[in-house]
Amino acid sequence: MAQAAQTPRAAQPARAAQTEQPAPATIGNSEFDRDTAVVRRGPGLYDAQLSEGWTIIEAVNGGYLLAILGRALGEALPHPDPFTITAHYLTASRPGPAEVRTETVRTGRTLSTGSASLIQRNEDGSEVERIRVTAHYGDLDDLPDDVRTTAKPPAIPPYEHCLGADAAPDAALIPGSSAITDRLDLRLDPATAGWAVGAPSGRGEMRAWFGLADGRDADPLSLLLAVDALPPTAFELGLMGWVPTTELTVHVRCRPAPGPLRIAISTRNLAGGFLEEDAEVWDSQDRLVAQSRQLARALPV
Amino acid sequence: MAQAAQTPRAAQPARAAQTEQPAPATIGNSEFDRDTAVVRRGPGLYDAQLSEGWTIIEAVNGGYLLAILGRALGEALPHPDPFTITAHYLTASRPGPAEVRTETVRTGRTLSTGSASLIQRNEDGSEVERIRVTAHYGDLDDLPDDVRTTAKPPAIPPYEHCLGADAAPDAALIPGSSAITDRLDLRLDPATAGWAVGAPSGRGEMRAWFGLADGRDADPLSLLLAVDALPPTAFELGLMGWVPTTELTVHVRCRPAPGPLRIAISTRNLAGGFLEEDAEVWDSQDRLVAQSRQLARALPV
Repeated sequence: MAQAAQTPRAAQPARAAQTEQPAPATIGNSEFDRDTAVVRRGPGLYDAQLSEGWTIIEAVNGGYLLAILGRALGEALPHPDPFTITAHYLTASRPGPAEVRTETVRTGRTLSTGSASLIQRNEDGSEVERIRVTAHYGDLDDLPDDVRTTAKPPAIPPYEHCLGADAAPDAALIPGSSAITDRLDLRLDPATAGWAVGAPSGRGEMRAWFGLADGRDADPLSLLLAVDALPPTAFELGLMGWVPTTELTVHVRCRPAPGPLRIAISTRNLAGGFLEEDAEVWDSQDRLVAQSRQLARALPV
Repeated sequence: MAQAAQTPRAAQPARAAQTEQPAPATIGNSEFDRDTAVVRRGPGLYDAQLSEGWTIIEAVNGGYLLAILGRALGEALPHPDPFTITAHYLTASRPGPAEVRTETVRTGRTLSTGSASLIQRNEDGSEVERIRVTAHYGDLDDLPDDVRTTAKPPAIPPYEHCLGADAAPDAALIPGSSAITDRLDLRLDPATAGWAVGAPSGRGEMRAWFGLADGRDADPLSLLLAVDALPPTAFELGLMGWVPTTELTVHVRCRPAPGPLRIAISTRNLAGGFLEEDAEVWDSQDRLVAQSRQLARALPV
């Protein structure tokens, strides 16, 4: 909270008063909540609607999709919060109707385990599986308060000195949908934004402030979105091609405090056409609230 | 290969000649291969025998179990090598018969996806699921040779200056089985072995040379064992209790070269009774051959 004066949330009330900006959205009543809603249709079976609002170019964001699956598992299992959740991406999801089929693998006192599939239909009506997920769920509020972490929050300039989508030069404009950028309040550390002006740093690092554009605070489900919301580290390594996720695992370690998040992503090993992307997500109280790793392909342009 | 003079494999021939030590075991003909064998009983269905040889105290090693599941998936899927494999541990496995049930989720040109369950029977004959796995498989030999990694091998003293199980003082002796230590050629960096003499470093780090005791070289399946074979980093953080794995994800990035491996494990975040353990495995040619992360519980003594 020591950095509250640097954060967008603290700066908003003054602006809102001047421009009659709407009040910030709340957890449970926001675009993210509406677009990740699942409707129970039978035991372990849920209907979902994949929104065009979370697409980039032609792809539906993988973290948004994971949040839908995570929400269905949270309803199907006796525990509310994803402690560790792994998605294997199979085929490219499309905006439109989808079905989530959950299986309760095991229920325990402190942890429950479930798996889930996201299913869509081809034009000929045949089913196609998009994503397979397995996860342990628990209750973050039941965890003891001990913190013996040696990890430190990322060194990132104040929010006001970081770069939003409006600061992107024409060179960074991407053909196709950029709908997701309107829904995020994402501010890149200028030190990791060289790729946008054709001068990538050569280091596999990306750092940013992260929030939802409508002011909704973070919760465990929006953390699943946050870990996959930054530009690929591959851009800073000089590879501007498509970087599809094959597998993504997220550990949610703590319920995030209100206020903006800081995210640091790093890649150590780009080899054989694959790279890992590790993300750390820190909340406004300097708690490491989520850690993730994905294995992505680096496809040629 | 520059470090071959420091390695146990290079030192063995001379010793073998003097003591008539048996020739090193080979991939496909070793205790590890026999103890991870699966016998096909039907479509996607395999019988396995969990060996007592890979136990520590009362637990069957989680990496050994993952290797059995990984082997069954390698037989069931059209591709041979695990590229990314995730295990959710449900209940404690016991030495004895087990069944692996695989499902082919998707087959693609370069990647196939499968899931697998390890099943055992309770004394009353009822089934109990031990582990649920999901994985992408591919062929490591088909990957391009590009390496743009920024990762560096761990700084670890030569093999001869590291500590084997025979160097452990009485204080480090653990009640119960230590069978697995006989099957591994594990040499700890003395800088990360303070826990064994009651002087943990306070840093969540563990580094070691790793091989199989019978001299079998590493392959993708034995890498699944390697990432979970070191003492827990929690020991160096001063926590000497049980540290059961809840989830483990391994990325196999390269087929390992012959010769010993170097493994570095680190923990950044111990909080709320959970900790992550990240492992990097390096081969004798200084290639980063595997990366893993697990979420473990830190249970009180």
